[in-house]
This record gives sequence, structure tokens and C-alpha cells, in this order.
Amino acid sequence: MGPVDAIAGTPHPPYVAVIFTSVGSDDDRGYAAAADAMDTAVRQQPGYLGHESARAGIGITVSYWRDEAAALAWKQVGAHLGAQQLGRERWYADYRVRVAHVTRDYGPRP
Amino acid sequence: MGPVDAIAGTPHPPYVAVIFTSVGSDDDRGYAAAADAMDTAVRQQPGYLGHESARAGIGITVSYWRDEAAALAWKQVGAHLGAQQLGRERWYADYRVRVAHVTRDYGPRP
Repeated sequence: MGPVDAIAGTPHPPYVAVIFTSVGSDDDRGYAAAADAMDTAVRQQPGYLGHESARAGIGITVSYWRDEAAALAWKQVGAHLGAQQLGRERWYADYRVRVAHVTRDYGPRP
Repeated sequence: MGPVDAIAGTPHPPYVAVIFTSVGSDDDRGYAAAADAMDTAVRQQPGYLGHESARAGIGITVSYWRDEAAALAWKQVGAHLGAQQLGRERWYADYRVRVAHVTRDYGPRP
């Protein structure tokens, strides 16, 4: 998913975080367009709460979901399946997906 | 914590992920040195499993821990408390810390 410049405005826990960490390959053909398309598509998904993404050496994208079922449904969306296949075959030398349950969070303001 | 260029080699779940997302301020005095120092110090912490970090627009650092107690102990380390204070007062316009329990993970290899 494409770059974002703000912290996701997630609700009070509990909710689900999907942490996607990737190491890019030398072949990024089609990546930018696909990232933009996924950035648009994910926002339409039921149970989507927000996402954050940064890339520098490695890429980290964290998407937030109402529950595991909502996260899993996004994994199965057709356009996303195509992007996942291109990711495995072309864009990523390595990656890891971690599914986690957020139990508490805090920031500078109460 | 400083930049890393590899995916953390975490064990099989369950384990804890602390997702730290930040928006930088205009004042980064002392940041690079502190990030390097934290990168060294965190690796000495009991229960530390690894971390990943990227910054581009926003910064995302995910650290992995054996359990919540290990993550909380790192939050209380003296040098880290000093860095947290400088973060709140100087380096970050905004940030969010999310504590999450990783229940499953997967990558390109079985």
C-alpha cells in the first residue's frame, strides 16, 4: 500500500493489526501503480480502521482492522490476490506478515 | 531506534509486538545519536526478540518481545526514559504506541 503521512486514527482497543514487513527485490515494475490501487481499495473494505506505511531499507505497512475476519476478507479480495502474487514473484526478496491483537495503546495526549 | 535492513527473525507465535508510529517535528537535534544508542541498548534487554524500523513521511518501528513484561521493562530503562522524554518534548509532533499480541505469522517460505 502507498505511503501515508499521518498516524491512523484507530478506535479504543481491542482491534487487529496486520504488520507486513518486506525487503524489496531489484524489480519494481508495476509496484507504484499497484500500491496506489491497493491504497484506494483497502479503504473500501468492511472493518478497515486505517493503515500506516513507511519504506527505507525495509518496508513496513501496518493495517488496522475491526477483527481477524475483516483482515482475512481483505486478503481474499481479487485485486489484492493479484498484487500478492506479483509481490511474491517480482517485488519482494523477502517478507513477513504478522497478525496481532492490539490490547492497549497510548500517545502524547490522554 | 535506528534503521534496520532485515526482517526480524522472530520465533513462532505467540509473542508481543510494540508498534511505535511517529510524525517528526522540525527539531531533530540529538535524534540520530539517540537512535543509535537505543538500537544498541535494546538488544541487551531480556526478552528482546528483534525490531524493524523505517521512516518516510512517518516513522514506524516495531519491536518484538517475549511477553508484555519484557516490553514494559524496556520502557522503564533509564536511558530509554530520557529518549522518550526528548521524543515528547523535541523530536515528535505526534506519536502512537500500540501493544499487540502476535497470534500467527507467515512469509514466502513455509
